[in-house]
Amino acid sequence: MTNRKNRQFLLTSRPVGMPADENFELREVTLPDLEDGQVLVRTLYLSVDPYMRGRMSDAKSYVEPYPLGEVLQGGVVGEIVESKNERWQPGDVVVGLLGWQDFSVSNGRGLLKIDPSVAPISTALGVVGMPGLTAYFGLLEIGQPQEGETVVVSGAAGAVGTIVGQIAKIKGCRVVGIAGDDEKCAYLTHELGFDVAINYKTTADMRAALKEACPNGVDVYFDNVGGEITDAVMSRINFQARIAICGQISQYNLEKPDLGPRVFTQLLKSSALAKGFIVNDYAKQHKEGMQQLGQWVMEGKIKYRENIVDGLENVVEAFLGLFRGDNIGKQLVKVADL
Amino acid sequence: MTNRKNRQFLLTSRPVGMPADENFELREVTLPDLEDGQVLVRTLYLSVDPYMRGRMSDAKSYVEPYPLGEVLQGGVVGEIVESKNERWQPGDVVVGLLGWQDFSVSNGRGLLKIDPSVAPISTALGVVGMPGLTAYFGLLEIGQPQEGETVVVSGAAGAVGTIVGQIAKIKGCRVVGIAGDDEKCAYLTHELGFDVAINYKTTADMRAALKEACPNGVDVYFDNVGGEITDAVMSRINFQARIAICGQISQYNLEKPDLGPRVFTQLLKSSALAKGFIVNDYAKQHKEGMQQLGQWVMEGKIKYRENIVDGLENVVEAFLGLFRGDNIGKQLVKVADL
Repeated sequence: MTNRKNRQFLLTSRPVGMPADENFELREVTLPDLEDGQVLVRTLYLSVDPYMRGRMSDAKSYVEPYPLGEVLQGGVVGEIVESKNERWQPGDVVVGLLGWQDFSVSNGRGLLKIDPSVAPISTALGVVGMPGLTAYFGLLEIGQPQEGETVVVSGAAGAVGTIVGQIAKIKGCRVVGIAGDDEKCAYLTHELGFDVAINYKTTADMRAALKEACPNGVDVYFDNVGGEITDAVMSRINFQARIAICGQISQYNLEKPDLGPRVFTQLLKSSALAKGFIVNDYAKQHKEGMQQLGQWVMEGKIKYRENIVDGLENVVEAFLGLFRGDNIGKQLVKVADL
Repeated sequence: MTNRKNRQFLLTSRPVGMPADENFELREVTLPDLEDGQVLVRTLYLSVDPYMRGRMSDAKSYVEPYPLGEVLQGGVVGEIVESKNERWQPGDVVVGLLGWQDFSVSNGRGLLKIDPSVAPISTALGVVGMPGLTAYFGLLEIGQPQEGETVVVSGAAGAVGTIVGQIAKIKGCRVVGIAGDDEKCAYLTHELGFDVAINYKTTADMRAALKEACPNGVDVYFDNVGGEITDAVMSRINFQARIAICGQISQYNLEKPDLGPRVFTQLLKSSALAKGFIVNDYAKQHKEGMQQLGQWVMEGKIKYRENIVDGLENVVEAFLGLFRGDNIGKQLVKVADL
């Protein structure tokens, strides 16, 4: 490895409100030589995910804050291009938590080998990766959807929401998705089989729209967004309903916590259960989840879409697009060809 | 039965905000003759409970609204004084959902016979009755307290809260109670064995007080009150904490829903579980719960206190006292001697 260049994105200041370019720095460094036990991974795809916003702040959360002045971290599909670790060979394609950079040096821990002949390698960051598992365990373990019940999912056109709705259909539920534009809504109902999709940006009275979409009330709510949308769904929640709290993207960029009707009163009136979760709460069952998701994809029961931006230099822009709702399905950044 | 008089309280209008005398009417009627299958129950003790506020409104909830112009209903311990039903004999002491009146006519359904030689008959409305079972199932089934964990209970000096804290101590937990005056707090720590009691009315910074009282955070929160107290507790909630939502008494008399930080964000950050519940969710286990509670009372592991107001004519006043926090332990109205 002689003087190979590496571009990398650092977090240089903590965003207040919506993150902006000034919070990040793109710099170019020379790659160090590998030490024994290390591998060099060439980045092929980077994942950008809403939860990363939380890591950019230093508030207490379920993941550690990103340290300032260091390379940002996220899900990466890459190729091993050099190895001083006998477990890994050049040419291996892997997925793991690595840097927002062209090349990452790793000791190999936490890397998972993927087989490019089974499915497109990018799906390891999407439908059969973390977002797919998040949908799988959040819906099935917390939501416990029963045949004939009504499942509502917010952020329905995103990487997680698209999978939640399709699994709920597999389980025989009525599925109502909430999304932010008509193209997304059409995708949900025409391509993914959702029963109803509601465009919250053009719907004046969400409570009335939900009442019409859910004549028997809401048995399971899979929440990716929080805020006013969640208030509206909670007003239709059924006795002993289950609410899987996966994300609260409407809140992540607020400087002060948003205010709204107290949700505990609604949980109380309905004997309903609400549970926050992260995919790692179900780490012991991840293998089972990946197998089931892979099988459903092969059988055509789960479709997926990826929104791919080209070039490492566009990763911040791709990340910010998550909060504008630019993407349908999983947002990825393609950094290099295999 | 010749012309026996019966005083009864009716709901005559739906309260807006805090109920007042004008919402109720005390009238005197003549008792009808019993029909076949009916029994006449002489009221000995009446229970007043915060959930009754919800039934005075006509909003959708887990129980039907009280009809206007009819006798109010609640838990009653009474004596059978006349019977045209072979299952019941004059002299039987029973507990059941009957009227706010001197005498109730019943077909016997839903009445439970109690044995005055085992425990004071009033406890059938308290520690071994609905409030005790509410504490038992809410804490053990939803809270799942583990030895060494920290349990916080709001409304700690009430009929349910006093039992919750004592069961949590039996389970080996650190127990922190929140109540509204120093006498209540002293009772909790000196007589019931709570580790800490916080008087929220004299504590300027509840978050700081909770941080000091719960150095290892909050693993289980048993919520009777909601509102700002709950916001403060939620700020200390631990990863995978459990929140049993039993009551929201701070909210019941508000004309508009109170506002506050969105609790879903805190549930999400903590992978915490929140579940609303009513005691009937665990109807199949009520017998088991009553036996265990009775055993703990006999062993001196659970103490209880009753706040008894004399005279049917004072039932509205006793009910309103619940919202002022007049009572320590179970609030009862004594209507007649056995």
